[in-house]
Amino acid sequence: MADPVYETALGASTKDTITLLGQDLAEDVMGTVGFGELAFWLATQRRPANGETRVFEAVLAALADHGFTPTAIVTRLTYLSAPDSVQGALAAGLLGGGSRFLGVTEDCGRFLHAVLSEVDTLPVDDEGWDALALETVEKARAAKEFVPGLGHHVHKDGDPRTPRLFAIADEEGLRGPHLQLFAAIGRVHPRVLGKTLPLNGAGVCGAALADLGLPLELLRGFALLARTAGLIGQLAEELRHPVANDIFLSVDLNNRSVPPDPHA
Amino acid sequence: MADPVYETALGASTKDTITLLGQDLAEDVMGTVGFGELAFWLATQRRPANGETRVFEAVLAALADHGFTPTAIVTRLTYLSAPDSVQGALAAGLLGGGSRFLGVTEDCGRFLHAVLSEVDTLPVDDEGWDALALETVEKARAAKEFVPGLGHHVHKDGDPRTPRLFAIADEEGLRGPHLQLFAAIGRVHPRVLGKTLPLNGAGVCGAALADLGLPLELLRGFALLARTAGLIGQLAEELRHPVANDIFLSVDLNNRSVPPDPHA
Amino acid sequence: MADPVYETALGASTKDTITLLGQDLAEDVMGTVGFGELAFWLATQRRPANGETRVFEAVLAALADHGFTPTAIVTRLTYLSAPDSVQGALAAGLLGGGSRFLGVTEDCGRFLHAVLSEVDTLPVDDEGWDALALETVEKARAAKEFVPGLGHHVHKDGDPRTPRLFAIADEEGLRGPHLQLFAAIGRVHPRVLGKTLPLNGAGVCGAALADLGLPLELLRGFALLARTAGLIGQLAEELRHPVANDIFLSVDLNNRSVPPDPHA
Amino acid sequence: MADPVYETALGASTKDTITLLGQDLAEDVMGTVGFGELAFWLATQRRPANGETRVFEAVLAALADHGFTPTAIVTRLTYLSAPDSVQGALAAGLLGGGSRFLGVTEDCGRFLHAVLSEVDTLPVDDEGWDALALETVEKARAAKEFVPGLGHHVHKDGDPRTPRLFAIADEEGLRGPHLQLFAAIGRVHPRVLGKTLPLNGAGVCGAALADLGLPLELLRGFALLARTAGLIGQLAEELRHPVANDIFLSVDLNNRSVPPDPHA
Repeated sequence: MADPVYETALGASTKDTITLLGQDLAEDVMGTVGFGELAFWLATQRRPANGETRVFEAVLAALADHGFTPTAIVTRLTYLSAPDSVQGALAAGLLGGGSRFLGVTEDCGRFLHAVLSEVDTLPVDDEGWDALALETVEKARAAKEFVPGLGHHVHKDGDPRTPRLFAIADEEGLRGPHLQLFAAIGRVHPRVLGKTLPLNGAGVCGAALADLGLPLELLRGFALLARTAGLIGQLAEELRHPVANDIFLSVDLNNRSVPPDPHA
Repeated sequence: MADPVYETALGASTKDTITLLGQDLAEDVMGTVGFGELAFWLATQRRPANGETRVFEAVLAALADHGFTPTAIVTRLTYLSAPDSVQGALAAGLLGGGSRFLGVTEDCGRFLHAVLSEVDTLPVDDEGWDALALETVEKARAAKEFVPGLGHHVHKDGDPRTPRLFAIADEEGLRGPHLQLFAAIGRVHPRVLGKTLPLNGAGVCGAALADLGLPLELLRGFALLARTAGLIGQLAEELRHPVANDIFLSVDLNNRSVPPDPHA
Repeated sequence: MADPVYETALGASTKDTITLLGQDLAEDVMGTVGFGELAFWLATQRRPANGETRVFEAVLAALADHGFTPTAIVTRLTYLSAPDSVQGALAAGLLGGGSRFLGVTEDCGRFLHAVLSEVDTLPVDDEGWDALALETVEKARAAKEFVPGLGHHVHKDGDPRTPRLFAIADEEGLRGPHLQLFAAIGRVHPRVLGKTLPLNGAGVCGAALADLGLPLELLRGFALLARTAGLIGQLAEELRHPVANDIFLSVDLNNRSVPPDPHA
Repeated sequence: MADPVYETALGASTKDTITLLGQDLAEDVMGTVGFGELAFWLATQRRPANGETRVFEAVLAALADHGFTPTAIVTRLTYLSAPDSVQGALAAGLLGGGSRFLGVTEDCGRFLHAVLSEVDTLPVDDEGWDALALETVEKARAAKEFVPGLGHHVHKDGDPRTPRLFAIADEEGLRGPHLQLFAAIGRVHPRVLGKTLPLNGAGVCGAALADLGLPLELLRGFALLARTAGLIGQLAEELRHPVANDIFLSVDLNNRSVPPDPHA
C-alpha cells in the first residue's frame, strides 16, 4: 500500500512555526481569540462573528454545571478512587453525557433540523411558524413520541434559561429557523397536548447550536465541552471540601446483602 | 447514619431559579460571562479580571490542538469503531492526556511551585531570579533529573508560543513568580548544561496557570479542557474528510503475524 | 428523606467474612470456580452447568482479540501517551466496543430474540426453523434492513468460528432457539437474497449468549469482557515489542496541512 | 518513510483462517481453553499449566467484586445517565481502578519484586525469609513508608482471602519468592511495628501474580480484568433491581448550596 497522506486544517507545526486553522498560532490566535470563539472555529473551520460567539458561550454557560448530577458524582468518586489520574476522573464523568442526562440538547437540535429539512419554503412570520409547529406536535402525538426539549422535571413553570437564550439570540440577530420553530412549539403545543409544558433550557441550547451551523452529529459534544469545565470545577471543590468519601460511605454503609436472584 | 449534607457553591436549582457560583445563571452569567472566564471562575470560585482571562485563554489556545497526536488519532479511531457514542470518542482521547503528551504543563507548574515554596523571600530583580534559577538547574543536574519544560523535540531553536505567552502576561501585568523563575531558567541553564535548550510552550503554560492561582493538582485538567475543544475539531474534520479508516488499514494491512514469544 | 437501603447479592463483607453471590468467597469460590464460570454467575446470579461454562468460554475466546483492530491500536496509543494509567489505556480501548466493531454480537442476539418473542410456538424440526427463517429474511429484505450477523467482510467463504461454536453447543446439548434460528437463516437466506453469505462468528456468539440466558441488554458487555483480556495481551506485547510510537509517527509524518474548509 | 511493519503474535486472520497466539482459534482454542487460561496466555504468550491457571483464577475471583465500591457506584450511575452505552459504563467504572482502590495488588507485587531483585541469593528456608522480611520492614519503617499490602481497614483480624490463596498456591506447588517474602513479612512485622497487622488479600494477590511471572507493569490490569466481570454483574443487578437513581437522589436531595469560597 502506498503511504496514505492524512490532510488536516487543524494544528500543524514545523521546526519554527505552529499553525492552527491556517493561522499563526502564537501571533494570531494566542491573546486574540477567546476560548469559546476558538472552540467554535475548530468545529466549523469558520471564525464566528462576535454575536455568534456570544450565543455560543451563553449555551456553554447554560450547560456547564448542574450541581450533583450523576456526571459530577462520578467524577468525584473516580478521583477518590484513582487520584493519580485527573484525566480518568474527567473522562469517567463525560461518559455519563449520553442519551439521558445531556442528550436533550442534541436530540432537540436534530429533531428540529429533521422537521425543517422536509419543508420546501420556510415560514416568514409567526403565523407560519405556528402552523408548522402545530403540524409537528400533532405528528409527534400521533406517533406517540415526545417532542425533545418540551417539558422539564424540575422547572415546571418555566426554565429560566429559555427566555434568556431567546433574548440573547434576538439581540444578536441570530434567531434562526431552529429557534423559531422551537419557540412556536412552545406557543402551540397546549392546543394539542391540552397542557402547557415549559421549553427546556437544554433543548433551546440545541436549537441555538443548530442555528449557529454547528455539526448536528456533534451537538452533544458541545454539551460535553461545557461540562468539562464544570467537572474541573467539581474536582476543584472536591479538593477544598471533599464529599466523595461521604457519598461512597452513604451507599456502602446502607448496603444490605440479599440472596442471589437467579435470572431464569 | 444521619443523612450527610453535601455542600456546593457550583450549580444549584429550585423550581424557579438556577444559580451557578452564587450568580443567577440566566441573568448574570449567560450572555455576559465568556467560556474561558467561566472555566476559570468554576475552578477557583473567584471571577477573574479581564487580564487574567486573556492569559488563561491564551494558554488554552496554545494547548487546544497539535494535529495528529495520539489523542487525536485515538478519538478518530474510537469514533470510527463506535459512532454511536461521541462521549466515548472524546473520553478515549482525553485518556491519553497523561504524563507524557500533555503532562509537561502540570509537571512544569508543580516543579516551579515546589522551588518557590522553599524560598523565604522572592527575588526582586532579574539578577536575583537568575541566581535562584542557577541553583535550581544545578540541583536538578546533580540529582540527574530533567527540569520539566526545558527542551522541545521539534522546536529545537525556540517554541513560538513561549515569547508570545510571556509578552501577553507582561501586557497584562501578570508575570508572576512562576513565569519569572521559568524565564530565568531559560537564561541561565546553558551555563550549567553547556547547551541552550528552548523553553517549551506547554511548560510556559504551566508556569502561567500557576501564576494565575489555579489549583496545581488540576493543571493537567486545563490542558484537557483545551484539548476537548481540539478533539471536537478533530471529530468535525473526520466527519467531513474521514481518515480514521485509512489509519486503521495502514496498520492492519502492514501487520505481520509472528510466533508467540513466551515472556519467561 | 429516610436513608435508602441498597440491596445487593454481589460482594459483601464484614470484619471476618467476605461473601460473593451468597457464597463464602475464600472457601467456596477461590480455587473452585473458574473465571468464565464466575463471570457467568455474576451476570445471572445462577451458577452455570459445566456445558454452559464451556460454551460461554468458547464465545469469550472467539471475541478476545482480533489483532490490530481500532480498539487494540487505541489502547496501545493511549498507553504510549499516558503510561501512568493502565486503567486509562484499557478503558480507552473498550470505548471502541460500540455499534460497529463489537456490536454485531449484541445486534444479532437481540434481533433473533425479537423474532422469537413474536412466535407463539417454537418450531420442532429443521423444516419448521427454515420456514421461520425464510419469513424473517424476507421481512428484513422488504424493510431494506440487514440481518445482523449475516456476512463477513474478510471471511467471505465462511467464518471458521461459526461451525466450531455450533459443534460445541451441540456437544453440550445447548443448541437453543437462537442458535437454531440463526443456523436456519444460514440455510435459507440464499433463496431470498440470491447469494450465499457466511454466518459471522461474532453473530453466532450473540446467538449462543442469548441461548445461555444472559441478559440481552448486556451482550455487548461480554464482548467487552473478552476484549479486556485481549487488550491486556496487546499491552503486554507492546511492553516487549513497542509499535505504538511507529504507528503514531506513520500518521504524523504523513500529515499534510491544508487550508480550512469552512463548514457553511 | 518506508511502510513500517507491525508484528504481533496475537490475533491474525486471512480469508480462511483465524489464529490466536499461533493456534488455530476455532479448532485449538475455542472449546478447549478456559477464559482464565486464555487471559494468562495472552499476557505472557505462554500457555499456563493447570496449577498456574487455578492460582490465577483464584486471584481473579478474589478481586472481581467488592460490593458498592466507588467503581461499582460509578458504573451504575453512568449507566443511569447514558444507558445507550454499556461500554461507557464499564469504562467509567474501570477508571476508578487506580492507585487507591485497586492499587494495592500492583503496589504489593512491585514492592516485593524490588526487594527480591536486590538479593543475590534467595533464602532457602523460613528462617532466611524471616531475616529478609525483617530487614525489609525495618527499611520501610526507617524511610517512614508503608509496606504495601500490610493492613486492611475492614478485616482487622485477618483477611479471609489470605490463608486461602496461600493454601491454593501450596497445593499447586506455586509458592514462589514473592509469596514467601510476603508470608515472612506477615510473620515478622510485629517485631518491628509493635502491632500485628493482617496481610491484605489484594496484596497477596499481587504476590501470587508476580510469582506466576505476569508482567509487573500490568498487575493492575488483572485486577481490572476481574473487575470487568464484577461490573457486568453490577449492571445486570441494576437492570433487575435499579438503585442508581436512588443513589443519585440521595446526594442531590441532600445538597445544600453555599456561597463560593474563592481559592485565593
